Amino acid sequence: MEVKMAKNYGFCFGVKRAIEIAQKNKNSLTLGSLIHNPKEIKRLERDFNVRVQEDVESVEANESVIIRTHGIPKHDLALLKEKNVHIIDATCPYVIKPQQIVEKMSAQGYQIVIFGDANHPEVKGVISYSSTPPLVVGSLAELQTQKLGKRIALVSQTTKQTPKLLEIASFLIAHCAEVRIFNTICNATFDNQEAVRELSQEVDIMVIVGGKSSSNTKQLFNIAKEFCADSYLVEDFNDLDPTWFVGKTLCGISAGASTPDWIIQGVREKIEEF
Amino acid sequence: MEVKMAKNYGFCFGVKRAIEIAQKNKNSLTLGSLIHNPKEIKRLERDFNVRVQEDVESVEANESVIIRTHGIPKHDLALLKEKNVHIIDATCPYVIKPQQIVEKMSAQGYQIVIFGDANHPEVKGVISYSSTPPLVVGSLAELQTQKLGKRIALVSQTTKQTPKLLEIASFLIAHCAEVRIFNTICNATFDNQEAVRELSQEVDIMVIVGGKSSSNTKQLFNIAKEFCADSYLVEDFNDLDPTWFVGKTLCGISAGASTPDWIIQGVREKIEEF
Repeated sequence: MEVKMAKNYGFCFGVKRAIEIAQKNKNSLTLGSLIHNPKEIKRLERDFNVRVQEDVESVEANESVIIRTHGIPKHDLALLKEKNVHIIDATCPYVIKPQQIVEKMSAQGYQIVIFGDANHPEVKGVISYSSTPPLVVGSLAELQTQKLGKRIALVSQTTKQTPKLLEIASFLIAHCAEVRIFNTICNATFDNQEAVRELSQEVDIMVIVGGKSSSNTKQLFNIAKEFCADSYLVEDFNDLDPTWFVGKTLCGISAGASTPDWIIQGVREKIEEF
Repeated sequence: MEVKMAKNYGFCFGVKRAIEIAQKNKNSLTLGSLIHNPKEIKRLERDFNVRVQEDVESVEANESVIIRTHGIPKHDLALLKEKNVHIIDATCPYVIKPQQIVEKMSAQGYQIVIFGDANHPEVKGVISYSSTPPLVVGSLAELQTQKLGKRIALVSQTTKQTPKLLEIASFLIAHCAEVRIFNTICNATFDNQEAVRELSQEVDIMVIVGGKSSSNTKQLFNIAKEFCADSYLVEDFNDLDPTWFVGKTLCGISAGASTPDWIIQGVREKIEEF
């Protein structure tokens, strides 16, 4: 099987940075998974004794706690400070931005609209910085049923797609006197998405490598499916099914922003064997 | 015959207000035509001695000068103040808004984008309030060739259409970190159409008053016909035919955006006599 890699794929700046931070801070805890990739989390635990702690309450004083790329809610951060733990902030700078914007805009009286998934850790963190209850919408349809004020500030989960943000922005502009739009979508995601859009139109089969709970990986998979009916999402080479490749000649590969290179290489090698 | 007027018809709020101001200020000048309607301008000169003065330089001290609905450039206003004339401001409040926004946002360092026709008196006025040279674009295509900053404030000429504003806004959002969008479009034309759509569904007969060559009047007439088979277009009361009203009990009336109230009232009174 011939293989073609997407122009851009895999780790973004924020994830690379977080992993470097974790490797430099052996024997520390991360509050929730550092990144959305179970395999990489296991590697960090095995090689660096960086362990995942899900519950902020049970962190003990004097521990070193790494704040993961998605950030954590403001009150959890306050709790950590109270406990006098050593805080190592690996929050992606692109995630800190919407947190700061929401804090400032809500203080200035803007109604906050967050385009994102209310249950995603990044969004939970961003929500916590609003001094008034924000509207969190995953789509234009969800926004249309809401009561809107005159002055709106709109931010996006960093991994969302620009066209969907524009739909939401357009609705707000048509219905509100002032809409202050902060395009907090990360380009890395966009670049990976564009590369999948391009590649999936020229191959027989697309394989997206990434964690099944990773939002940006799922989006790559959705884009791939749009243009290539035979698109598959795998966490590593073990998920590959040889029957998928029967009668195919060219396989495109891309990977989510939290997928380490060593996993991608494993998938690539296995596919080349088919 | 019972008569019901459309919720919105004829002159918009800003034009009505300007005419009232002119009538209350006999023997004054207007800088340029007060509104875009020659018949009405003639009436104001004949009945109220309100005359049109095109050139700000030749206004003499102690004259009363009415500033027209579209507003005037900031420097012309300053010149009038220097000349010690009596200034009567009939600028439409919907036009004052983008002037104020542009003044404030340019002072705060936002790059100003104005969606409008650079040669329209309203836009000339708005431009003059920017402390930095604004980008004035009539379409998305014109914007795409421009160099953009990171922080943009966008306003619109009041008579532009929302879908075109959204095209421009979307481009800016996709390319800039922060876009602050002030929807300064006035919905008067849209509101007149909506009001005809509503009224024509509850009456036996609809009469639309306006010039037979007026495009927006014909649009109102077409909407009326859609919902009320007995719809008629008249230029003034002379066009009314009593046979239209036989067997009818409720007549709806609307009028084009360039139809003065005194013409509409003439039609209304005649119909009530039937």
